[in-house]
Amino acid sequence: MNLRIPGPTPVPESVLQAMTKQMVNHRGKEFGELVQKITERLQGFFQTKGDVLILTASGTGSMEAAVTNTLSPGDEVLAITNGSFGDRFAKIAEVFGAKVNHLSFEWGQPVDPDAVRRALAAHPRLKAVLLVHNETSTGVTNDLKAIAAIVRQHDKLFLVDAISSIGCIPLPTDEWGCDVVLSGSQKGWMCPPGLAFVSFSQRAWAANKTARMPRFYFDLGRAKTILQKQQTPWTPAVSTFYALGVSLELMAQEGLENIHQRHARVARRAREGVRSLGLKLLAPESCASNTVTAVYAPSGVDPLTLRRTLLAEYKIDLAEGQEKLADKIFRIGHLGFVTEADIDKVTAALREALPRLGYRPAASAVPKS
Amino acid sequence: MNLRIPGPTPVPESVLQAMTKQMVNHRGKEFGELVQKITERLQGFFQTKGDVLILTASGTGSMEAAVTNTLSPGDEVLAITNGSFGDRFAKIAEVFGAKVNHLSFEWGQPVDPDAVRRALAAHPRLKAVLLVHNETSTGVTNDLKAIAAIVRQHDKLFLVDAISSIGCIPLPTDEWGCDVVLSGSQKGWMCPPGLAFVSFSQRAWAANKTARMPRFYFDLGRAKTILQKQQTPWTPAVSTFYALGVSLELMAQEGLENIHQRHARVARRAREGVRSLGLKLLAPESCASNTVTAVYAPSGVDPLTLRRTLLAEYKIDLAEGQEKLADKIFRIGHLGFVTEADIDKVTAALREALPRLGYRPAASAVPKS
Repeated sequence: MNLRIPGPTPVPESVLQAMTKQMVNHRGKEFGELVQKITERLQGFFQTKGDVLILTASGTGSMEAAVTNTLSPGDEVLAITNGSFGDRFAKIAEVFGAKVNHLSFEWGQPVDPDAVRRALAAHPRLKAVLLVHNETSTGVTNDLKAIAAIVRQHDKLFLVDAISSIGCIPLPTDEWGCDVVLSGSQKGWMCPPGLAFVSFSQRAWAANKTARMPRFYFDLGRAKTILQKQQTPWTPAVSTFYALGVSLELMAQEGLENIHQRHARVARRAREGVRSLGLKLLAPESCASNTVTAVYAPSGVDPLTLRRTLLAEYKIDLAEGQEKLADKIFRIGHLGFVTEADIDKVTAALREALPRLGYRPAASAVPKS
Repeated sequence: MNLRIPGPTPVPESVLQAMTKQMVNHRGKEFGELVQKITERLQGFFQTKGDVLILTASGTGSMEAAVTNTLSPGDEVLAITNGSFGDRFAKIAEVFGAKVNHLSFEWGQPVDPDAVRRALAAHPRLKAVLLVHNETSTGVTNDLKAIAAIVRQHDKLFLVDAISSIGCIPLPTDEWGCDVVLSGSQKGWMCPPGLAFVSFSQRAWAANKTARMPRFYFDLGRAKTILQKQQTPWTPAVSTFYALGVSLELMAQEGLENIHQRHARVARRAREGVRSLGLKLLAPESCASNTVTAVYAPSGVDPLTLRRTLLAEYKIDLAEGQEKLADKIFRIGHLGFVTEADIDKVTAALREALPRLGYRPAASAVPKS
């Protein structure tokens, strides 16, 4: 199986094998040392001297934690969205009682930093800004560096969903001044799902002191306190910690810079591959994501039929378009444990399958033979 | 290692091996069938025709889900507590804005059903009753059947933390009229931690319709809706689902009645073992738990030193006492994948180690040689 969805992502064999280890006491010394080591490794990959807390949850749990640990009901926030996950982040803030100002961009287009600047000027009472770094639903990477600089200028709390970016795409948390940065084990980390990561800056802890949104399972203050004893507040997903210990070791061996370059290479290969077939990408090249590529299904080809064909005949599992893009696009995930060879197989399969499904590329797009 | 804490509990080798399976698409057919099969199996073990929803979280997450999916801020609840987990359940209700009436019993003593009856009569505006079936912190199993009958008589919503009981100790959810019943994969289910289970009755869904406590990650309405597509709302802990599929198969092979009897036998062996050494149990025999046994450290023996000795010299990992019991007791976990032989090793190790730590049993308690 060539699992080409943006998470869960394929897991190296040694990481899978790590999970055959028997349970240990999650409040004992051995597990504590693993918690400690993983936490330090994550701080390294997040490029932060701040805290990184590990939750037994999927990424959405970390989004809830980011909101409820920094805000109070009635707090005004700016939710910047250009896709399904941006909308989710905004919705969570709303559900827990924030006053949400939306700054929305077309799905498939990047967030415009100048518009962020104007929105911040127009809403002086904002407490926090919410942004998705890499919008998994559209394959757009937002210009986090530029946006972060603007948020810092206005001295707002900055909550960043980096679930499908960090560890794959550069995100120096402290250097760019991101207060809360989120990720999930099943994304770039080459690990099964079940753990979510939250970095928390000093500014975030200051906000936490007065944050009155209700929280218990995701209470990061508790998590920080008990982390001093190398523990988690509640029983953690022990086996997934075992897996993560090994996958972070593999990442350390490869090196963060090399991992970023590999993701850039693989993503370029994906974009070139689909373009060589005459297909059109959803996102402009300037903001095209290095972890997921969204592709318009060509006219007359149903994306669901295409995905089913690739799954049945080529054992390639592509992701669907979400919500309003459901009948328009398909997505190729290429994050974590992925190489150019995995992508070449996708291109080759599309090249074979599409004509059978009725696709006739424009002459100019036919690849040279 | 003889891991004798009340979770994580030892996992059979075939269950560990199940986790070496590669990731699949969590929204694909294969995983959907697994979700479906596991859900049906859990309904069987919960003895309910109601819904059972699976959360990627530890048990505490399911406690939060129980509260926030049935209640609104200001709702009055009765939180019955006789230990640390009862207090936790009450605290969660309080954090999310419920008006909590406490009905507390001494740690180590059972909940008195008559006191529950009086409390229900005294608080006619109660919306819900919160109870821990098996108090893991003290090794007490409350008389759920009797208490449930009283709660039903008063037609209150009944939220039951059965995290360390169901699957080990009889709990016919529908027959006894429990509206929400909670558990976690690392307890009786012979599976690693990372998944929590919530059963939800028709009465619970009726309450859900007007429940206004904020919830997003733990929104069970969403979970129920998407379960019709054999999916979970957020990316689930795929590997732990693989493990659970196998462990539930093992449980089905053994049969629920046999599992209950095994837990009863093993627990009796544990109690007889420690009593044969002249040690005193925290809980009266009449309410002694079949999944965890709490034992007073004998006079002059520090329970931490005792636990460390057993760990270092016998590879037996016992649990600590919690909070006010920390320097008074130790606990022996015996739930899930456990037999009499595991317990006999604990008794034998205690028999050897205790005298070296200064223990001199009263003459009457010296086991006959």
